[in-house]
Amino acid sequence: MIKLNCDLGESFGTWKKGMDAEIMPHIDLANIACGFHASDPLTMIETVQLAIKNQVTIGAHPGYPDIIGFGRRHIPMTDEELVATILYQLGALQTICCSQNTSVTYVKPHGALYNDMMQKPHIFEVICQAIALSKVTSTIMVQALPDMQTHLGIAEKYGLTVWQEAFADRHYQDNGLLASRSQPNAVISDENEVCSRIQAYINSGHIMSESGKVLPLQVDSFCVHGDNIAALNLVKSIRVVIANESKRA
Amino acid sequence: MIKLNCDLGESFGTWKKGMDAEIMPHIDLANIACGFHASDPLTMIETVQLAIKNQVTIGAHPGYPDIIGFGRRHIPMTDEELVATILYQLGALQTICCSQNTSVTYVKPHGALYNDMMQKPHIFEVICQAIALSKVTSTIMVQALPDMQTHLGIAEKYGLTVWQEAFADRHYQDNGLLASRSQPNAVISDENEVCSRIQAYINSGHIMSESGKVLPLQVDSFCVHGDNIAALNLVKSIRVVIANESKRA
Amino acid sequence: MIKLNCDLGESFGTWKKGMDAEIMPHIDLANIACGFHASDPLTMIETVQLAIKNQVTIGAHPGYPDIIGFGRRHIPMTDEELVATILYQLGALQTICCSQNTSVTYVKPHGALYNDMMQKPHIFEVICQAIALSKVTSTIMVQALPDMQTHLGIAEKYGLTVWQEAFADRHYQDNGLLASRSQPNAVISDENEVCSRIQAYINSGHIMSESGKVLPLQVDSFCVHGDNIAALNLVKSIRVVIANESKRA
Amino acid sequence: MIKLNCDLGESFGTWKKGMDAEIMPHIDLANIACGFHASDPLTMIETVQLAIKNQVTIGAHPGYPDIIGFGRRHIPMTDEELVATILYQLGALQTICCSQNTSVTYVKPHGALYNDMMQKPHIFEVICQAIALSKVTSTIMVQALPDMQTHLGIAEKYGLTVWQEAFADRHYQDNGLLASRSQPNAVISDENEVCSRIQAYINSGHIMSESGKVLPLQVDSFCVHGDNIAALNLVKSIRVVIANESKRA
Repeated sequence: MIKLNCDLGESFGTWKKGMDAEIMPHIDLANIACGFHASDPLTMIETVQLAIKNQVTIGAHPGYPDIIGFGRRHIPMTDEELVATILYQLGALQTICCSQNTSVTYVKPHGALYNDMMQKPHIFEVICQAIALSKVTSTIMVQALPDMQTHLGIAEKYGLTVWQEAFADRHYQDNGLLASRSQPNAVISDENEVCSRIQAYINSGHIMSESGKVLPLQVDSFCVHGDNIAALNLVKSIRVVIANESKRA
Repeated sequence: MIKLNCDLGESFGTWKKGMDAEIMPHIDLANIACGFHASDPLTMIETVQLAIKNQVTIGAHPGYPDIIGFGRRHIPMTDEELVATILYQLGALQTICCSQNTSVTYVKPHGALYNDMMQKPHIFEVICQAIALSKVTSTIMVQALPDMQTHLGIAEKYGLTVWQEAFADRHYQDNGLLASRSQPNAVISDENEVCSRIQAYINSGHIMSESGKVLPLQVDSFCVHGDNIAALNLVKSIRVVIANESKRA
Repeated sequence: MIKLNCDLGESFGTWKKGMDAEIMPHIDLANIACGFHASDPLTMIETVQLAIKNQVTIGAHPGYPDIIGFGRRHIPMTDEELVATILYQLGALQTICCSQNTSVTYVKPHGALYNDMMQKPHIFEVICQAIALSKVTSTIMVQALPDMQTHLGIAEKYGLTVWQEAFADRHYQDNGLLASRSQPNAVISDENEVCSRIQAYINSGHIMSESGKVLPLQVDSFCVHGDNIAALNLVKSIRVVIANESKRA
Repeated sequence: MIKLNCDLGESFGTWKKGMDAEIMPHIDLANIACGFHASDPLTMIETVQLAIKNQVTIGAHPGYPDIIGFGRRHIPMTDEELVATILYQLGALQTICCSQNTSVTYVKPHGALYNDMMQKPHIFEVICQAIALSKVTSTIMVQALPDMQTHLGIAEKYGLTVWQEAFADRHYQDNGLLASRSQPNAVISDENEVCSRIQAYINSGHIMSESGKVLPLQVDSFCVHGDNIAALNLVKSIRVVIANESKRA
């Protein structure tokens, strides 16, 4: 069954972000921020406790060290620095999980680090190396692309399993990358359309690009959002689509 | 044999502190900063590598979140926050150690957190709880006092082993606490006197207070410093005292 | 006419806090955070622009350097450090104001710094000294107390004017200090009661303590909040009370 | 007379950097860090006091918000953010200067911001706009290039005066830019050679590129360093060269 993943635990000190308590019952995988682009130790432990309570699998969501930019900015660093930065974040979340008798199951990089990983094989390799060195987990979540050979090859080199995710609420370019958010229609806000796209993927194994090109993808999980009421309602609707399919299967 | 421990890995970004490479060959236990009062991920990994190269045992040296104050200021926090803050730091260092095929052997709190732990049993208990929850290690280093009953009782409650350290270059009060640094003669700078104090402890199991009171202490380790050439030379001299004793034993 | 003041500009990077755009049209004085307990340079310039657009007088709202604790924690510092910390914040906001052809009219310390200032005359004196040295403004806002002699004397020594504020939604102790928030009924949430208290003050120049003691206060401004819809509605109601009074006067 | 400028006030909390007290008597212009890539409020006020004591002119040395990277990394930001970031830093230093009865005389951007300004006219324009808006000063220091037309044109548009600096201890490319530090011979460490280059510039108004091309530059100031004893001695020697020339003139 296709799983739903969501970025969570993105509050920071007294600043709250997201409707974590509301969205958690409706997702399968929680990508939990590790304190470098969002979150803090107390928020992390509370988010882990919330995931456990809702039987949601925990993933580490490391980012560039960039609180003010929320990890959406590329921060230049050497390979050694990036490895150390990822090890630090994975370790912090892993021990917080361990204190609650659970553990980190996978890693999904955040924001600019995610974008860099998808577009620059060298950065993907540095991230894979860090995960392998950490011994925290051996699964990395990436964006599903029609051609995953480069990424799969690198992950294999480091003994990592790859989970692939897609975005049901985003238009795709013909090359399988997302249409830029700067485009007027990059994000699909109509609930029915988003659900139809997921249904279509379930039926066919394809996602349609904006121009109508068929994109064969291997989707293990759809990424959903929990920022507001509309997002929450959308997730509930998507959950129905997937549950129906699951019953049929 | 009595071990020498030293606070290390206290550089921060491009700011260097301490003579880590020079002091490391002469100590047994390295208290490595974890990024909250000093250090950063890259400095941590480099310090761990240096410890491994010199066969030095690694301890986590967590502190209050206070870079500007170098962890020497008490930062008010709830018990939950303090537990989370310690778990975070222990986990970060443990995974960095793990990436280098080693691990954290003990925990020694830093600065104001260390002082708070020695003077406030409740804070000591919260720290013990965090260490026990972390499953990273089960040893905590504290200051040796003539009466350790309170601390030993709390540590036992959480299943922790206690290592006790003393300060050979500091004058003691009659109650076993250190004379305040604000006193003119709080720090003993004469190399011979420091070495004599260590020799006297080895011979007798006692340290003499400033007023001449005999303080029976259980010292597992002496704390030394690596900030400058004089400190480095002092450590080399102390090492000779301890090595001679060891040969005799 | 009694003025309404509100803490504003408390967002941080992508984390939003408060309904600044909604509350600004209804207040007279905006206490703008300066980047040490909340805010960032971009948020500050946007908040200043919003104040100008609504013809609201700008006050600097400096705090302890404590983003994670939102300035609600006492951070130990020397007098020299505190002076420098306040100068830095006042200057940053003043130049941002200057870039928009306005300026800082007064200073109201935030959170733990405000509490320290009210309870510890020495800290109040250090703050007054910093304001006088800054040459940014010569007005400080403090809490109105039945006995203001100590504070007024210190302010006068540094050539500062004192504005006094009261809290219409908080119960008072007999000594004129606020009932602790830890008490169940410390905050008055009933809109009518809050408005009645302001009306009563306008009529009598007194605020009644919880036990019924009459507290004569010199109130230049009431502090209001803009965190949520209820707070916003309360401010609109208070505004009506004050406007009616103003017409009568 | 050609002036010597030096980056100063680059300590951070308890981490010390540079020999500020030793170098200050030998320079004319102090580029003082403003807390975003280095320094803190207390360090800033102490550095300003040191400059005053040595009758050194004060310049603001703003940088990208990047403590860990010491401002040597390009941090992506919008124009509005960059303007706000510079205003904030200029204001903070200006008010600290004002508290000591002095003021900021010029602005010299630091590190990656300096490099960006020299290579990207748009970033130079945003910096000029921020300085003009700040009303703190109207002088900016940039690198002297054989062709300054673009930079001078932009500065004039914002009513700014331009001071040009050169680097006597760095090899130049034929286009007037510095040879990259990654080249083995980018930095000239021989004291005599550095002094000869300054003497040659005084005699001819030219600096020679590495390949022997004559670069006509308008140099108002040479940039010197104060990090270590060798740098300090070099500055003293340069001072002699300039003083002799001054006597002749």
